[in-house]
Amino acid sequence: MNGLLELLVDGEPSRASWPLDRGLQYGDGLFETMRVSGGRIRLEDLHRARLAEGCRRLFIRTDELRIWEAVERVAARYDSAVLRLQLTRGVGLARGYMPAGGERACWLLAVFQSGTGAGLPRPLRVCSLHSRLGENPELAGLKHCNRLEQVLARQAMAGGTAYEGLMASSSGLLISGTMSNVFLELDGEIVTPALDRCGVAGVMRAAVLREAQRAGVPVRVTDLPFEALARATALALSNAHVGLVAVDELDGRQLVRNEALSQLATRVEALEG
Amino acid sequence: MNGLLELLVDGEPSRASWPLDRGLQYGDGLFETMRVSGGRIRLEDLHRARLAEGCRRLFIRTDELRIWEAVERVAARYDSAVLRLQLTRGVGLARGYMPAGGERACWLLAVFQSGTGAGLPRPLRVCSLHSRLGENPELAGLKHCNRLEQVLARQAMAGGTAYEGLMASSSGLLISGTMSNVFLELDGEIVTPALDRCGVAGVMRAAVLREAQRAGVPVRVTDLPFEALARATALALSNAHVGLVAVDELDGRQLVRNEALSQLATRVEALEG
Repeated sequence: MNGLLELLVDGEPSRASWPLDRGLQYGDGLFETMRVSGGRIRLEDLHRARLAEGCRRLFIRTDELRIWEAVERVAARYDSAVLRLQLTRGVGLARGYMPAGGERACWLLAVFQSGTGAGLPRPLRVCSLHSRLGENPELAGLKHCNRLEQVLARQAMAGGTAYEGLMASSSGLLISGTMSNVFLELDGEIVTPALDRCGVAGVMRAAVLREAQRAGVPVRVTDLPFEALARATALALSNAHVGLVAVDELDGRQLVRNEALSQLATRVEALEG
Repeated sequence: MNGLLELLVDGEPSRASWPLDRGLQYGDGLFETMRVSGGRIRLEDLHRARLAEGCRRLFIRTDELRIWEAVERVAARYDSAVLRLQLTRGVGLARGYMPAGGERACWLLAVFQSGTGAGLPRPLRVCSLHSRLGENPELAGLKHCNRLEQVLARQAMAGGTAYEGLMASSSGLLISGTMSNVFLELDGEIVTPALDRCGVAGVMRAAVLREAQRAGVPVRVTDLPFEALARATALALSNAHVGLVAVDELDGRQLVRNEALSQLATRVEALEG
């Protein structure tokens, strides 16, 4: 980096370049957490589309095709695993927020064991949280690496029995869980929050919406006040890891199962790839 | 990290731990950019206070005293330099947003050359930006590592002649520049935006407010609609690197110099340490 005189890591002199990676300095990057099943990345098309969209909106240029080829080769070696692919803008060439433009993007791939057989806790409990999500349409929907809001929200849940916590935006709209999207049964209708102000547009959410359309199940994407949660009769969480799962209790209140959501859960679970 | 099977960096197998640092994964950390003059860190008390506040609010535990001793030893070797101290929560012990709790914080120190003699461009031009800052009181004021909003804002300025761009919050309040705080002359009064919803509470801003109090110069900290910029007659930017500097042009409109702000600029520049 221009003008760098010296670098220390935990007090020791270092010649490494990673401490100057903009991913580390500013969370200037994107990631995808993916499920591998039988050597294939589930919903790979949707993961690829979201990462591409993130690169476009953050102006990160890299050879995505080559990266995905390498990721596929790794996935092929596993029957069951979780992959975390992270892409950063790379080592900054100049100090400060403005990228110099010539940065070389860096990609990281970590392979994790799948959850051990036990699966999700039952009853599946969800709580509503006080932590809010800041609204920024420029970043909304992306799975970028600025995740302190989720880190704080998860810390606020420590010690509780809830599997997931639901969050509102700064203007009071229901957005999502800390690590999942939500589908609600509300006044007999299935709805899911619009994510044009904040929140991560999950690939499983996209898969559920796609399957709903194919199956002719009406799901409305809309702005919902956080208070609507109190009227929800059924609730399901979605993410790439768990699929679409029904919630048993919301803030201690018993929920019912929605037949159409159960049907969609079966459909997305059965999807190839 | 629990359950890690394999790790690749740019496609090559790696045994490094930094790719699993939560600073890189989630921007889960804090930083301070400091000016060294004559072997001493300017406004060190304010930098230390802000970092401590950040650790408290993000629940990052580390031996700050020992870190600052080491940083001071490095600073002592330079007559003039810029230090960037970053503190991350460290390598995650478990996958996901929730820290396991036993993470060991990591600190990074980079020393850069001070700007070369030329100094600030004159006339100093500032523009107002369309990029917004998401509001989140839990993170407001901190110099944390979730900085994509600033990265996008700086990218939007590329190719223009402005030195700095001013940003509104999602609800339309004037907050700050992309890398500085702002002081305005408005209806004959000096004001600076409140930062309880978003924005970084700059150490130079704190120093200016402290000097204003000492000098008996009234400066009001308040909520300001972004549109108030159009009525500002004078404007100054503050950050640890440049001090408090008068702006010559705002969106092409000529500004005047405010006598009291010039006086405060001289006072903060003359501060010891």
